[in-house]
Amino acid sequence: MAELGPFRVNPDGKTLSRNRHAWNNVANVIFLESPAGVGFSYSNASVESGDSGTAVDAYLFLLNWLERFPEYKGRDFYIAGESYSGHYVPQLATVIVALAEFGLTDMNLKGIFVGNPYLDDYMNTKGSYEFLWNHGVISDEVWGNISEHCSFGRVEGTACGQAKKSFKIGDIDRYNIYAPVCIESPDGSLHSSSYLPGYDPCIGAYIDAYFNSPKVQKAMHVRTNTKCNLHWTDAPVSMVPTLAWLVDNGLRVWLYSGDMDDVCPITATRYSVKDLNLAITKPWRPWYTPDSEVGGYAQQYEGGFTFASVRGAGHMVPSFQPKRSLVLFYSFMKGVLPPAVSVWSP
Amino acid sequence: MAELGPFRVNPDGKTLSRNRHAWNNVANVIFLESPAGVGFSYSNASVESGDSGTAVDAYLFLLNWLERFPEYKGRDFYIAGESYSGHYVPQLATVIVALAEFGLTDMNLKGIFVGNPYLDDYMNTKGSYEFLWNHGVISDEVWGNISEHCSFGRVEGTACGQAKKSFKIGDIDRYNIYAPVCIESPDGSLHSSSYLPGYDPCIGAYIDAYFNSPKVQKAMHVRTNTKCNLHWTDAPVSMVPTLAWLVDNGLRVWLYSGDMDDVCPITATRYSVKDLNLAITKPWRPWYTPDSEVGGYAQQYEGGFTFASVRGAGHMVPSFQPKRSLVLFYSFMKGVLPPAVSVWSP
Repeated sequence: MAELGPFRVNPDGKTLSRNRHAWNNVANVIFLESPAGVGFSYSNASVESGDSGTAVDAYLFLLNWLERFPEYKGRDFYIAGESYSGHYVPQLATVIVALAEFGLTDMNLKGIFVGNPYLDDYMNTKGSYEFLWNHGVISDEVWGNISEHCSFGRVEGTACGQAKKSFKIGDIDRYNIYAPVCIESPDGSLHSSSYLPGYDPCIGAYIDAYFNSPKVQKAMHVRTNTKCNLHWTDAPVSMVPTLAWLVDNGLRVWLYSGDMDDVCPITATRYSVKDLNLAITKPWRPWYTPDSEVGGYAQQYEGGFTFASVRGAGHMVPSFQPKRSLVLFYSFMKGVLPPAVSVWSP
Repeated sequence: MAELGPFRVNPDGKTLSRNRHAWNNVANVIFLESPAGVGFSYSNASVESGDSGTAVDAYLFLLNWLERFPEYKGRDFYIAGESYSGHYVPQLATVIVALAEFGLTDMNLKGIFVGNPYLDDYMNTKGSYEFLWNHGVISDEVWGNISEHCSFGRVEGTACGQAKKSFKIGDIDRYNIYAPVCIESPDGSLHSSSYLPGYDPCIGAYIDAYFNSPKVQKAMHVRTNTKCNLHWTDAPVSMVPTLAWLVDNGLRVWLYSGDMDDVCPITATRYSVKDLNLAITKPWRPWYTPDSEVGGYAQQYEGGFTFASVRGAGHMVPSFQPKRSLVLFYSFMKGVLPPAVSVWSP
């Protein structure tokens, strides 16, 4: 409702408006609330959750969904996600690819597409501080201290902890360090601290109001009073081996980064891409949107693995740069790098 | 006309509109076309120009100006500039401070304020590539090559030259890597590639049209058909010694950086600030505008030397962030760091 979907919630918390750059302009999209417990999804069985369980649950959901809508069986299928989907998406893909190799599934998985992915516990931490430093948010001195005292490994000393606490970034949005923020007035009303076309930092509050309306809940046939109470049991430190295995097994794997995000920053994703240790086949170059803007940069590696940036976007790329995000998604589905020149229409 | 002045030129190239965040809201401002040869200024005498001549010319201009408008004699006086003014402003200040110490001038110079300053030939080059790298514009591999083969000194080998040419940044504005660009349609009309409130990348063309109008030129009493033909004879490699001398001699010196500029990037300015080798008295912290936005970050050093960033601004800070630029300028004149909390009105 705030990103790639067909609708956005209006400030009244009750009505919707169309998102002109919704991804379902170019694909059929299923939105899956995953893992069980988030959103209106629920589970009667487990109180424990983890990466593996989530992958298997999502696979079973897809199996059942295809039984219910068999006309979609055999169609080209892609999985997309962002943030912690840096775990979920490659893990679900692994289940499907592994079963397909044994002829045990007929899902026609063509590729995965993950934005601002959380990939590696240590590299994400390192990348985040480095990003803050090289965007002027923290000083040379603070970054110097963090670099000196932190190993970005399993065990960190107190000097590292102190160095990490020794700065103030102020009231900026770590999901987009340049975006306006949502300000609450004394009367409780909300407004954006400044105007950024197409983006409203208060949209989370509108969405909350919308989905908490009994009318909406009734229309959606959801079970109400569900609670999100996840106890995470398993998660690999790094997703690099999983990604490497998928590339190795011929899957189209694209990662992308909105370049204004400090939560899963481009700097961190670059570290993990480097760790994949693949040869570059098409070096880093700009790509364009139909309105002649540089939408970002892209690089391709052996096996077709692709890493792209989306210029001027934060963590939730389709929220901040809807047009650029749609161009990149369309290119991913076509299996070609986005346009290298600015004369192009989708 | 595109930055801190009271007016902006409209797209018709003929009419003006008010800039609500003009600096003359809080100070009397003289705009000086310097050195002789730029804009409508001219010189009958010299074909050679340089840093020293420019400083002396500007000083003589001020002397004569104060004779013409003696009511301004003895008032607090500040010099501000941006870009190559990283040379002009400290050099003019040096003339005034040096003469004042001998009791030879009564100009009451209180401070200098320079944005995105060009300070050091080598550090500017190094800072620019490093900035492009850590903003995702060039790849790890290209930056690796540049770092390996370039010394950022007087002599560079061919390997450095090749490394510096081995990338494409595409059609982005190096004065603000995230700003929209000016697009020329086949019919010759101009438009911004996308909408950024308060900023029009085509304004340069409107200003050209405006100042080339005979009516405007007549109203301004300017000599027409002047030509800019500068042959530069002297410029120091680094302005750090000059800045150090000014701080040492008690002048209020503030530098600031719009953090989206690749031409005189914050990364480069940080190198020169470091080279000043002053002790930090107030560490890097966010500062706020009255609308509760983080306007940037600021750090103070012994002697009151201050370095600040302006968040979300390019090279021409008042063009991209007029409100933030006015808050910072006002704080500079008051001689206090800009607000550390968000509840504040000027």
